Amino acid sequence: MALGNTLSIDAMGGDDAPRVVIDGLAAFSEQRADVLFQLHGDEARLKPMLDDAPSLAKRCEIVHTDISVDMAEKPSQALKKARGSSMWNAIESVRAGDAQSAISAGNTGALMAMSMLALRKMKGVHRPGMTALWPTITGTSVILDVGANLEADASQLVTFAIMGEAYARAIFGVERPTVGLLNIGSEEMKGHEEIRAAAAILADNSLDLNYQGFVEGDDISKGVVDVVVTDGFTGNVAIKTAEGTARMFAHFMKAAFGSGPAAMTGALLARPGLKTLRTKLNPARANGAVLLGLNGLVVKSHGGTDAEGYANALRVAADLANSHYVEEVAASLSKIGSARAA
Amino acid sequence: MALGNTLSIDAMGGDDAPRVVIDGLAAFSEQRADVLFQLHGDEARLKPMLDDAPSLAKRCEIVHTDISVDMAEKPSQALKKARGSSMWNAIESVRAGDAQSAISAGNTGALMAMSMLALRKMKGVHRPGMTALWPTITGTSVILDVGANLEADASQLVTFAIMGEAYARAIFGVERPTVGLLNIGSEEMKGHEEIRAAAAILADNSLDLNYQGFVEGDDISKGVVDVVVTDGFTGNVAIKTAEGTARMFAHFMKAAFGSGPAAMTGALLARPGLKTLRTKLNPARANGAVLLGLNGLVVKSHGGTDAEGYANALRVAADLANSHYVEEVAASLSKIGSARAA
Repeated sequence: MALGNTLSIDAMGGDDAPRVVIDGLAAFSEQRADVLFQLHGDEARLKPMLDDAPSLAKRCEIVHTDISVDMAEKPSQALKKARGSSMWNAIESVRAGDAQSAISAGNTGALMAMSMLALRKMKGVHRPGMTALWPTITGTSVILDVGANLEADASQLVTFAIMGEAYARAIFGVERPTVGLLNIGSEEMKGHEEIRAAAAILADNSLDLNYQGFVEGDDISKGVVDVVVTDGFTGNVAIKTAEGTARMFAHFMKAAFGSGPAAMTGALLARPGLKTLRTKLNPARANGAVLLGLNGLVVKSHGGTDAEGYANALRVAADLANSHYVEEVAASLSKIGSARAA
Repeated sequence: MALGNTLSIDAMGGDDAPRVVIDGLAAFSEQRADVLFQLHGDEARLKPMLDDAPSLAKRCEIVHTDISVDMAEKPSQALKKARGSSMWNAIESVRAGDAQSAISAGNTGALMAMSMLALRKMKGVHRPGMTALWPTITGTSVILDVGANLEADASQLVTFAIMGEAYARAIFGVERPTVGLLNIGSEEMKGHEEIRAAAAILADNSLDLNYQGFVEGDDISKGVVDVVVTDGFTGNVAIKTAEGTARMFAHFMKAAFGSGPAAMTGALLARPGLKTLRTKLNPARANGAVLLGLNGLVVKSHGGTDAEGYANALRVAADLANSHYVEEVAASLSKIGSARAA
C-alpha cells in the first residue's frame, strides 16, 4: 500500500458543511492511518473544529479561501467565479499533483464542469461518466453512468464499461470484476441499436473484460454483475427508482411494526436482525460517486450525507488513489483506439 | 354499470394454463356477477375443469381450437400460425364485437403483434403502449410505456399521457388523475429534448389534463402522480429495478427474522402487520398490463401469475370494458390533431 496519499477536500461543499466534512474526516482518519488531508475553505470556521480534533488536525493542512460555490447555482454561473473557490482549489490541487483525489459534497453540475475544465478528459473519452454504488443481495455493485450524460452511443457505453471495470477492481479489490450491459431483455436481438453495437464490441475478447452480456433491471439488486453499464438517463432513473422502492418498503415495515402492542414487542425482539438490515441498506454505505474519464480523480459525496456517509466517500477516494485506476483505463482505451485503427 | 360485458380469454396462454386461468376465473366470477366469459382453447381440457366449477361454467362459453402459441416463439413465427390459435381467436372476438376485452397470459410479443394486426391502431396513435400497475405508499399508480416501444418522441409521449390518464380514470375511478413525465430532474431545463417538448405540449391547457410536470424515479413509489409517462425502455428498466429492489428487501428481512430465537419470536408477534405488508406489495395485485392505443381492449397477464393475479388481470379488463376509455382517448387524440392542424 502506498503511504502518504493526500486527499484534497472541498470543506465548504454540502448541506451541513463544514461540520459534516470534519466529522467524516475524523471518523475516516481513525480507520486509515495512511492518508493526509488538504482542507480547502474558510480557515476561521475550520480551525476551531480541528482544534477540537487534535489527532485529525495533525494530518490536515488548511488552504484558506473565502469563496464557496452555492448548492443551487447553475454550473455556468459557478464557473464564472470558479477560480479560487474551495471546490476549484480542491480540484486544482489534484491537477498540480499535490493531491491524489479531490472530494466535494457540493453542487454536482459545478463539480463536473470545473473538473472537466481543470483536469481535462482522458484521451479516448468523449464524455466523462459518473458512478454510483448499489447494495445488492450478494454485496455491492457499481452502476454508471448515473446522470452525467443523457444519451450514450456504443463507443461511450464501451468506455463506461472499461472505466467501471477498473473502478470496481480498485474499490472492491476483485481481480476480474464482471460487467453487464443494462437492457430490457437478455436476448441478443433486444434493445437499442447502440446497446447491441456496444455488446458486440464488449464480447470481442481483445478488450479482455469479464463481460457477461445483457442484464435487466431486476438483476442489479441480485448482484448478477459487479459493473452495470448504461446511459446517464437510464442509470439515474434506475437508482432513484430503487431508492424510492426501498423507502416505500421501509415505510410499510414501520407501519407493520407499529400496528399494535404485539407487533411492537415483535419489533423489539427482532431488533438486532433489523439493525443488520438497516446497516446493509444504509445509504451512507453507498455514498461516493466518482467522475470517471478525467486526468485525475474526483469523488462526489451526496450533499445531504452524514459523517458516516462522508467517511465512505473518503474511503472511495483513498482506495482509488491507492490503485492503478488511471493507468489501467488509459491502457484499455488505447486498445480500443488501436482496434478501431486496425 | 353496464350488464353483460363479455371477456374473451386465451385459455391456453401462460405457464400453467389452462389451470391458473380457470382458477382465476372462478375467483373473479365470485366478485363480479356482471361479466360473461368466452374461453378460447382446447375443449377436451377445459370442459372437465368447468364441470368441477358449475357456477362459473354457467357464465362460460368454450370456443374450441387445437392451436396455441408457444411462450418462447418469436412474434414473427407466432404470426404465421396466428389465425385460429386461442390467442388470435380471443382478440378476433373483440374485433367482431362479440367481446369487450381480450385477456392473455401468453407470449407478449405475439400478443402485441396479433393485436395490432387484428384491431389496428387508433387514429392518431403511432405506436401502441403497454401499461403496468405500480404499488405506491398512497395507493397504486400506472406507468407506461413499459416495453412495447424502445424510444418515444414528444408526440408519442403525449399520446401515452392521454391514454394513461383515461386508463387511470377507468380502473382507479378517479375523476381527474394526475399525470407526470419521468425525468432525471424536476427543473425545466433537464432531460432529453423529446421530454421537454412533450412537457410543453402537456402543459398547454387545451389538452385539459391534470399535468403535474416532471417526476423522478423516487417519486413513483411515493405515489406523487397517478400516471407516470415514459418511453418503453426506461419504463421497463424502472419497473424491473423496483421489483428487484423489493425482492432484495424481502430477502434481507427474511434473514433478519431468521437470525436467532428472539428474532423469530419477534416475527411471529409481528405477523399480522407483516401480512399487511405482503398483501400491499403482492405482485398479484399489480397484475394486468394493457395494450393501449388499439381499436379494442387487450389485457396481458404475467405468464407466471397465480389465480389471484389472473383474477386481477380480469378485473382490469372488466373495469376497462365498463368504462368510456376508447371514446375518451379518441376525443383527446382528435384535440391534439386539431391543435397541430391549427
